[in-house]
Amino acid sequence: MASYRITLLAGDGIGPEITAIAVKLLERVAQQFNFQLDFDHQPVGGDAIEKFGEPLPASTLAACKASDAVLLAAIGAPKYDNLPRQQRPESGLLALRAGLDLFANLRPVAIVPALIDASSLRPEVISGVDLLVVRELTGGIYFGQPKGRVQLENGEERGFNTMTYSSSEVDRIAKVAFDLARQRRGVLCSVDKANVLDVSQLWRDRVNEMAGAYPDVNLSHMYVDNAAMQLVRQPRQFDVLLTSNLFGDILSDEAAMLTGSIGMLPSASLGSSGPGLFEPVHGSAPDIAGQDLANPLAMVLSAAMMLRIGLKQDAAALALENAVSAVLEQGFRTGDLMADGCTKLACSAMGEELLRAL
Amino acid sequence: MASYRITLLAGDGIGPEITAIAVKLLERVAQQFNFQLDFDHQPVGGDAIEKFGEPLPASTLAACKASDAVLLAAIGAPKYDNLPRQQRPESGLLALRAGLDLFANLRPVAIVPALIDASSLRPEVISGVDLLVVRELTGGIYFGQPKGRVQLENGEERGFNTMTYSSSEVDRIAKVAFDLARQRRGVLCSVDKANVLDVSQLWRDRVNEMAGAYPDVNLSHMYVDNAAMQLVRQPRQFDVLLTSNLFGDILSDEAAMLTGSIGMLPSASLGSSGPGLFEPVHGSAPDIAGQDLANPLAMVLSAAMMLRIGLKQDAAALALENAVSAVLEQGFRTGDLMADGCTKLACSAMGEELLRAL
Ligand SMILES: CC(C)[C@H](C(=O)O)[C@@H](O)C(=O)O
Ligand SMILES: CC(C)[C@H](C(=O)O)[C@@H](O)C(=O)O
Repeated sequence: MASYRITLLAGDGIGPEITAIAVKLLERVAQQFNFQLDFDHQPVGGDAIEKFGEPLPASTLAACKASDAVLLAAIGAPKYDNLPRQQRPESGLLALRAGLDLFANLRPVAIVPALIDASSLRPEVISGVDLLVVRELTGGIYFGQPKGRVQLENGEERGFNTMTYSSSEVDRIAKVAFDLARQRRGVLCSVDKANVLDVSQLWRDRVNEMAGAYPDVNLSHMYVDNAAMQLVRQPRQFDVLLTSNLFGDILSDEAAMLTGSIGMLPSASLGSSGPGLFEPVHGSAPDIAGQDLANPLAMVLSAAMMLRIGLKQDAAALALENAVSAVLEQGFRTGDLMADGCTKLACSAMGEELLRAL
Repeated sequence: MASYRITLLAGDGIGPEITAIAVKLLERVAQQFNFQLDFDHQPVGGDAIEKFGEPLPASTLAACKASDAVLLAAIGAPKYDNLPRQQRPESGLLALRAGLDLFANLRPVAIVPALIDASSLRPEVISGVDLLVVRELTGGIYFGQPKGRVQLENGEERGFNTMTYSSSEVDRIAKVAFDLARQRRGVLCSVDKANVLDVSQLWRDRVNEMAGAYPDVNLSHMYVDNAAMQLVRQPRQFDVLLTSNLFGDILSDEAAMLTGSIGMLPSASLGSSGPGLFEPVHGSAPDIAGQDLANPLAMVLSAAMMLRIGLKQDAAALALENAVSAVLEQGFRTGDLMADGCTKLACSAMGEELLRAL
């Protein structure tokens, strides 16, 4: 019987509640589909700051590296907002991405017909949207050197960061995007600011060079400002969006919000080898933490992504996804998605319904 | 009688058509409100590349500097897309901003009730939106040094740009935003990525420091990814948005598209002294150039901004704005805004109706 080691990073805020539900569902599908999951809980973010004084303890990173996949819920809480940046929960996340070499961040954004009314966009604009943001995650201005702050002679201060990519960094993320476009509708849009930035021109040159190997993929380029517009104007035009780290941070959040139901969206972060990291797009929602109000569906869909991409357990992944569709069709909603005629459920009750649907 | 020198930069694509209309209307209001305008046409962008081999000839910059205000229509055409970046029309625009020290870019985004159906957002989400993006325009990653591309020893190439601000650069744009917030609803949201970038932390620190002098302004900070989300989710929450150059490029285009009628939006770019530059937010629309199909309204509203901010001719500015409202209320539309029950007009015919409405 296949057996996998899963590192669970429940993190902060609503993290523990939604993790508990994902674990129950994962245990159930493992049983149903005949494989074994060994879970190992590790602290990260604020949780790790409390226990170890740092947002990514070495023991957590080591456990992640030794596992087959990592499932992260959410990190961050207001009480850490005024710490120096290196000591904040977010730094733990960046260190985890770097430590596991997770250069490819996949963020699918698809409209669930039952939730179309949650969107702030008109139904006819948003219906049928099914796009995937492929965001570079370990390079660009997030990690570029030099960076810092310096005192100038005239008494002023200057802050600076470096946005940089090497050709091989562009190549490896572009390959991921081309390969995924090929498996989808074959349409790839690479986003940059090549009319202003040298680093973007290199990005565009490398993507163009790779296009020769993918004659079946329809490649276009779009400036980031235009992409931010087009996502609002006509999001259905996109299949796969390829972006750098910063542009992907902005555009994937914009794209996620088009659905109006960010509590539904999973993501995957992958390296060239080693375990992938799977996590919901939403945050730790400190305002509702511990009140049994959270929406666990993005976490469950992240667990499904982990099963499919990380463990190649496609049937089990599909079972989880079907359970999510089933509860929505039955009209069950957590508070964030509540609508007329639906039944409002607590987080734990949603977990029960999901188990029943399995 | 007050007299002003206006440099007209008609530029490319639909630029000349919409400039012609703006000139006629400006001449009419000058007569009505008893001041004189001396127009001086100068080439910029592709137009200047054809005539002078460069996108911003020294003579054009000199003429701009010697004038009281600059009115720009649009630049850019596909035929220049493959030139080296420094020779493209866009570089002329960047050089113009730098040459006139236009550090403050103001982009108002307001919903015209008559056009609410043009938006891809639901009417109840978009109605009443009235926000102003204050974008820093001569600093940040657009102009930061060092930048370039280098060959690495291992045969790879690396591209890089520097995102940088000094404290005085942040201070002067922040002051513009605080002052404008004070004249509006008193709500200022400063956008950054201080959880990742050193340059953003400096930005945030300086903005916080200035807040003490504006106890009447309600200041908040938002990460750029969240701002991209919130603009889609609930755009009415914003009054003034303060951004760096790159974040403002992305967010102001996103905000503009929320209206669905980007053919309506003007902008102003201002320095600490010297003439301001006024231009529509839309581009040169090469696909419809020369066919009398363009929407001249954003250009007319840019001329109104020029009258109000650049020349302090408030009454004349209001007259232009009222003329625009009047033609829309009468149901006249250019093709981009055409809707059931409206009368479709060519660009020139829209100009005639505007003249009639004055
Ligand atoms: C928390 C933050 C550092 C992070 C990022 O900017 O990458 C987040 O916004 C994300 O998109 O995962
Ligand atoms: C044309 C381009 C250089 C310019 C910019 O990026 O500033 C444009 O997008 C704008 O916003 O005015």
